[in-house]
Amino acid sequence: MSEQQKATNITWHEGQISKTHRESLLEQKGAILWFTGLSGSGKSTIACALEKKLHDQGYLSYRLDGDNIRHGLNKDLGFSPQDRVENIRRIGEVSKLFADAGVIVSTSFISPYKADRDLARSLVLSGEFIEIYVKCSLTACEERDPKGLYKKARAGKIPEFTGISAPYEEPEKPELVIETDKKNVDDCVNEILSYLKSKNIITA
Amino acid sequence: MSEQQKATNITWHEGQISKTHRESLLEQKGAILWFTGLSGSGKSTIACALEKKLHDQGYLSYRLDGDNIRHGLNKDLGFSPQDRVENIRRIGEVSKLFADAGVIVSTSFISPYKADRDLARSLVLSGEFIEIYVKCSLTACEERDPKGLYKKARAGKIPEFTGISAPYEEPEKPELVIETDKKNVDDCVNEILSYLKSKNIITA
Repeated sequence: MSEQQKATNITWHEGQISKTHRESLLEQKGAILWFTGLSGSGKSTIACALEKKLHDQGYLSYRLDGDNIRHGLNKDLGFSPQDRVENIRRIGEVSKLFADAGVIVSTSFISPYKADRDLARSLVLSGEFIEIYVKCSLTACEERDPKGLYKKARAGKIPEFTGISAPYEEPEKPELVIETDKKNVDDCVNEILSYLKSKNIITA
Repeated sequence: MSEQQKATNITWHEGQISKTHRESLLEQKGAILWFTGLSGSGKSTIACALEKKLHDQGYLSYRLDGDNIRHGLNKDLGFSPQDRVENIRRIGEVSKLFADAGVIVSTSFISPYKADRDLARSLVLSGEFIEIYVKCSLTACEERDPKGLYKKARAGKIPEFTGISAPYEEPEKPELVIETDKKNVDDCVNEILSYLKSKNIITA
């Protein structure tokens, strides 16, 4: 066969492998676990503990958080209202790609505005977006203050700090409410695992 | 144990599960396959065929392309010089996240500028970025013209079309050169698979 003929053999098939194929390979369903809650409510702690348990059971999950988003994809964004919206929009779009890849992706950002969370939800099919409200009283969050942010906010050193000088809009119909000021980490994680099993996202 | 005590049990461990853990789970290494080449050179065709073969061998890969990027994450971007740079930057950052998740991620965009490709390369460790130059003569690309774009570009209906009215900067030191006007799709894919094996990204 001449080179010329070989070249014309190129066909333009695209996308033979779909989300379903990848999910079969991984024996799990791709989904977005959207953690939302006040600073210090325990979003990252719960997401990390969940990731560990999922991994130990053989499931592939991935966490998007401030560390790998704000310093990378969204490093061009500040904290203006438009930039906060764009920050959440991009996180939503990236989460969608991960879910499409078959991965159980979790996002742990305060994401205080209902409209932004709803935008992220609107990107994927019903059932793929699991909003997890990490509920914790402001008092408890402020007592924990793991990063010392509340102290700074109270001192007026951080403008528009969620819960202090900027609103947090509580989720109205989250798929899950996890109360970290009433339960320990293990119990919180087990609640999420039970939910994932009930929705056939994981099987074990 | 009282609720109050439980709350104070919350610890702030983060990130116990790393890229290495996920790679062990998947039995592969996360990496970025950055396909670059003229429109019609066969980037998507090769990436799709490769994805199929990787899947059939039990490897998790994911393709980023115009379909899932331009209509989603990068839908706010046009084709101005700044927007083209930002387009590639974001694709690079998202690819980095996928590689960190342990996934073999492929990108098939013309990405005509060396500086942009080098920026994407700079985001990850050496060895994680595999630049694949899908080499094909302009003549052959124009003969294929799968989307009728060259015809439009020659008629002056598309300004700044790569190869016609805008430059394509050939990769100087790509990890792989795949000549689609000299080899068929299977041979091209097998070349890439051999490379991935030689670098222990896959083992089969």
